[in-house]
Amino acid sequence: MTKKLGGDIKVIGLGPGSLDDLSPRARRALENCDVVVGYSTYIKLIENLIEGKKIISTGMMHEAERCRAALDCALDDHTVAVVSSGDAGIYGMAGLMLEMILELPIDRRPTVEVIAGISAVQASAAILGAPLTHDFAVISLSDLLTDWSVIERRIECAAAGDFVIAFYNPKSHKRVTQIERAREIILKFRAEDTPVGIVRNVSRDNQSKTISTLENFTREPIDMFTLVIVGSSKTFVKDGFMITPRLKQ
Amino acid sequence: MTKKLGGDIKVIGLGPGSLDDLSPRARRALENCDVVVGYSTYIKLIENLIEGKKIISTGMMHEAERCRAALDCALDDHTVAVVSSGDAGIYGMAGLMLEMILELPIDRRPTVEVIAGISAVQASAAILGAPLTHDFAVISLSDLLTDWSVIERRIECAAAGDFVIAFYNPKSHKRVTQIERAREIILKFRAEDTPVGIVRNVSRDNQSKTISTLENFTREPIDMFTLVIVGSSKTFVKDGFMITPRLKQ
Repeated sequence: MTKKLGGDIKVIGLGPGSLDDLSPRARRALENCDVVVGYSTYIKLIENLIEGKKIISTGMMHEAERCRAALDCALDDHTVAVVSSGDAGIYGMAGLMLEMILELPIDRRPTVEVIAGISAVQASAAILGAPLTHDFAVISLSDLLTDWSVIERRIECAAAGDFVIAFYNPKSHKRVTQIERAREIILKFRAEDTPVGIVRNVSRDNQSKTISTLENFTREPIDMFTLVIVGSSKTFVKDGFMITPRLKQ
Repeated sequence: MTKKLGGDIKVIGLGPGSLDDLSPRARRALENCDVVVGYSTYIKLIENLIEGKKIISTGMMHEAERCRAALDCALDDHTVAVVSSGDAGIYGMAGLMLEMILELPIDRRPTVEVIAGISAVQASAAILGAPLTHDFAVISLSDLLTDWSVIERRIECAAAGDFVIAFYNPKSHKRVTQIERAREIILKFRAEDTPVGIVRNVSRDNQSKTISTLENFTREPIDMFTLVIVGSSKTFVKDGFMITPRLKQ
């Protein structure tokens, strides 16, 4: 038998913040790998599952560095798990990792599999009630990698289409204006009393939720660990539950 | 101690079709309930987990009947699991179940928790590569419960906003024109060679995937067990992987 060239990479979504959300498929892939690559916070979440394995962790924002390290290990014939929080395919590492693998000649590439996980938008929706039961749009407000004009156009289109809108990365210490601008744009299309759900630290110890309105929601505490869900014209709130009905009304 | 009035309802997303996707949180809720309510196909998926429990299963389309049965059991002090495939909060049972509970006087309501699951769009994206790595919109093409004019407007807005667009319920025996109309609308905004991923029976034994183009994809087999993902202007295909990059290009 000839030795297989290149190892194996699994790009794994860990879920939003608790091992309670980790799928058996993802857990098995973690158990079967011999190298784990990820942002240090996510490595900590799974440390009991990966004892004795080689761990390559970096701070935030070093995605390309992490993917490069994962690829190097795979090319040394290791089985590598690249971990993201939430779903690796939703603002996670899957795209960048695949792009890097595809730069290699086809006969030198490691095998690769993307393993989906529960994303923050889903866990947040479950905490709020059922705000995503009808059509929705998912938008990141971070303009680090995307021109703000593109983001603004998306907000406008999602608002015009009466989508429920979920915002990832709504605000950080340095980025404070985007969520205000998003509010202004949506107010051109929707009523001031449109429900807005705000979930912080979903699936983590200090999880909290607030249900506010399009008029007032930006007065609530919002940071990078917050998910904001703006209701459609049909979304309603009753006794602390935020619901977008599926039925014709 | 006074006896607690009303039982407990967990609305549970089972994932797209394999127990490999079932979160520990969902599994524990299934193990701890004494009544399980769901569409017969999904009950079958979990039958080994729910042996000995009372099972109320119905055919498709009887959602209201199932929710009513779940509520009746909960009001008899049972712990009830209402199961959906995918994520209970995305075109699942969470909205209807909550609406029905909220119709009761507040002191007669069972406690309720929604437990998120991996949705078909995520599992399909993972099979295709990383098509959802940037902003996306999720639209159901079923006009059973939604006026077609609303759906068409959403398709147009999502296309105008250059969202990656995921279509649930793209086509059935009776509904064959909607996906063709969606294609026509998107073609007003995007190139004919825009990648389109088609995944059938995701996470099930007969899973298949095809990557086509906006011009040609409706020639592929598409049914109610198919998820269609239309790329944005930035989405590309290479060696069988469909990727929407996150980075500025």
